[in-house]
Amino acid sequence: AVAMPAIAQSMPEVKWRMTSSFPKSLDTIFGAAEVFAKAVSEATDGKFQIQVFAAGELVPGLQALDAVQNGTVEMCHSASYYYVGKDPTYALGTAVPFGLNARMINAWFYHGGGLEVLNEFYKKSGIYMLPGGNTGTQMGGWFRKEIKTVDDIKGLKMRIAGIAGQVLAKLGAVPQQIAGGDIYPALEKGTIDAAEWVGPYDDEKLGFQKVARYYYYPGFWEGCAALNFFFNDAKWNELPPIYRSVLTSAAARANVDMQASYDAKNPGAVKRLVASGAQLRPFPQEVMEACYKAANEIYEEISATNADFKKIYDHMRAFRNDEYLWFQVAEYTYDNFMIRARARG
Amino acid sequence: AVAMPAIAQSMPEVKWRMTSSFPKSLDTIFGAAEVFAKAVSEATDGKFQIQVFAAGELVPGLQALDAVQNGTVEMCHSASYYYVGKDPTYALGTAVPFGLNARMINAWFYHGGGLEVLNEFYKKSGIYMLPGGNTGTQMGGWFRKEIKTVDDIKGLKMRIAGIAGQVLAKLGAVPQQIAGGDIYPALEKGTIDAAEWVGPYDDEKLGFQKVARYYYYPGFWEGCAALNFFFNDAKWNELPPIYRSVLTSAAARANVDMQASYDAKNPGAVKRLVASGAQLRPFPQEVMEACYKAANEIYEEISATNADFKKIYDHMRAFRNDEYLWFQVAEYTYDNFMIRARARG
Repeated sequence: AVAMPAIAQSMPEVKWRMTSSFPKSLDTIFGAAEVFAKAVSEATDGKFQIQVFAAGELVPGLQALDAVQNGTVEMCHSASYYYVGKDPTYALGTAVPFGLNARMINAWFYHGGGLEVLNEFYKKSGIYMLPGGNTGTQMGGWFRKEIKTVDDIKGLKMRIAGIAGQVLAKLGAVPQQIAGGDIYPALEKGTIDAAEWVGPYDDEKLGFQKVARYYYYPGFWEGCAALNFFFNDAKWNELPPIYRSVLTSAAARANVDMQASYDAKNPGAVKRLVASGAQLRPFPQEVMEACYKAANEIYEEISATNADFKKIYDHMRAFRNDEYLWFQVAEYTYDNFMIRARARG
Repeated sequence: AVAMPAIAQSMPEVKWRMTSSFPKSLDTIFGAAEVFAKAVSEATDGKFQIQVFAAGELVPGLQALDAVQNGTVEMCHSASYYYVGKDPTYALGTAVPFGLNARMINAWFYHGGGLEVLNEFYKKSGIYMLPGGNTGTQMGGWFRKEIKTVDDIKGLKMRIAGIAGQVLAKLGAVPQQIAGGDIYPALEKGTIDAAEWVGPYDDEKLGFQKVARYYYYPGFWEGCAALNFFFNDAKWNELPPIYRSVLTSAAARANVDMQASYDAKNPGAVKRLVASGAQLRPFPQEVMEACYKAANEIYEEISATNADFKKIYDHMRAFRNDEYLWFQVAEYTYDNFMIRARARG
């Protein structure tokens, strides 16, 4: 018998399946899973293969996390906040209304203790999480009529989910759950009055400006939206250390790459949308303030009965308040000057 | 004879040396090189070892790129703009006054064609570059006296380098080249009137608030400062594909990790600095505008005689203008609301 070379033992042939919560048409988000899988394959000479499946190919998009938990797949690429139905604490891994922006959530994840407190929570469900991309601040969505006062929210039938839907419901809106492909006809027929999706690059593909021309900002329920790679904890732990390191670096690469991709693609899309009739509108300050108040009430309500949520939300909120203290100094002042300089030409 | 397993050939034992342009005391920047080297070692079972040397251990910090070019080391971690003395085009790999912010420069690098145009330029010197961290928007530095008008810049002896120094010189300042460790005594004795360094976390260690209490913002010459991993082109090309992939993912990981580290550490530092006497001051609008005008004049002057600079600067500027068009919509409006909500408590 000949001793196997150590390298062969430390780099076994592994084939995994990753289910994405997203369709291939959301190429920027779906692409982050592909960037990840390609980086893993290349770094292991093809010994660690991860096959990526779009939403619906193996399991429906919103069941991706369940498929990881029950071992149908080893991992998924998803958004933690899709699982608020299980526990509102899941929202904190992706976005909550008036939460962190994209720079801040990475700071919280990697150097602010965020990943530790979140993974303590996920571990209870047999899951390990690594950040897997970000959209940046999203848009507030498409409205058939202008929103001028808080009263204009009352009775508004809006396609919006999760805690954001609860916030708007406090102001009298009627949140609707509608799949992406069904939004356009619902807006066209007037079955709904408004719908939020992502931002210019993704929204443009669905042509909403033709049926709901007022394009509001910012999407205060998604100051950023972090995507997540979720791993089956047992599968993660049985990997050799080399592979855990390869996955961790590949996830970081996908994380920074996806944000860069959106940031490069959104400017052209917003110009084209405006050229084809979209009317950009900021949410009125009184609407923003009423929603901020409603969101804080909801956080208190959830925290009163959910210790996991309270612990992680309080951790995130303290971090956020310190971040904005600093960002308002150098970052914000710089951007403010550059925006005005650009507008002057 | 027995055939070597393919894996052993594709993962040879490699030992590299990386010289950093930074001292270990700048732990956030220096740390990015360590994060990179550790990720590479872990992903290759220790077969690819990169030893990191602080500035001065092998070569002085500002000669890191030369050491890569002449093969003294295989790679370095540095800031491209340190080499503007060779060619001002180098500035564009790190920062130019009124350039991109940190999100935008990643978008430009990875998805905006920025890395391609920069690497065309670096290739002429036998160098290949990957982004290697960012500081975010820096502070404008420490001033012994308040700056209230453009006239207050005249005759100001300020520690500031590169194109930023040229911009302030156009307004009558006298730029000074002083090493980090010599700034404090120069400010204390009044040999200089002002000095820029990095931002709260790094500045705090040097105690500038004790000798120059006015802490101005933003550092408009560093809307962000991208760090860079520079590789000897021949050494890069002789690596097996596995290793090039491992280095690329490790660099992306170091890139996002370093920004997150600064963003997590700066808020506490700015609070402590203010508590110990630092007086935060925004640069007056007329100073910002005069510097913006001066910077644009300098870019025209350089572009008139330097085709590389003109090509890459024009590429960056067009990208920047599109980016700010978009960022002013969702990102900026969100941050603006959050800053005001925080201030109201």
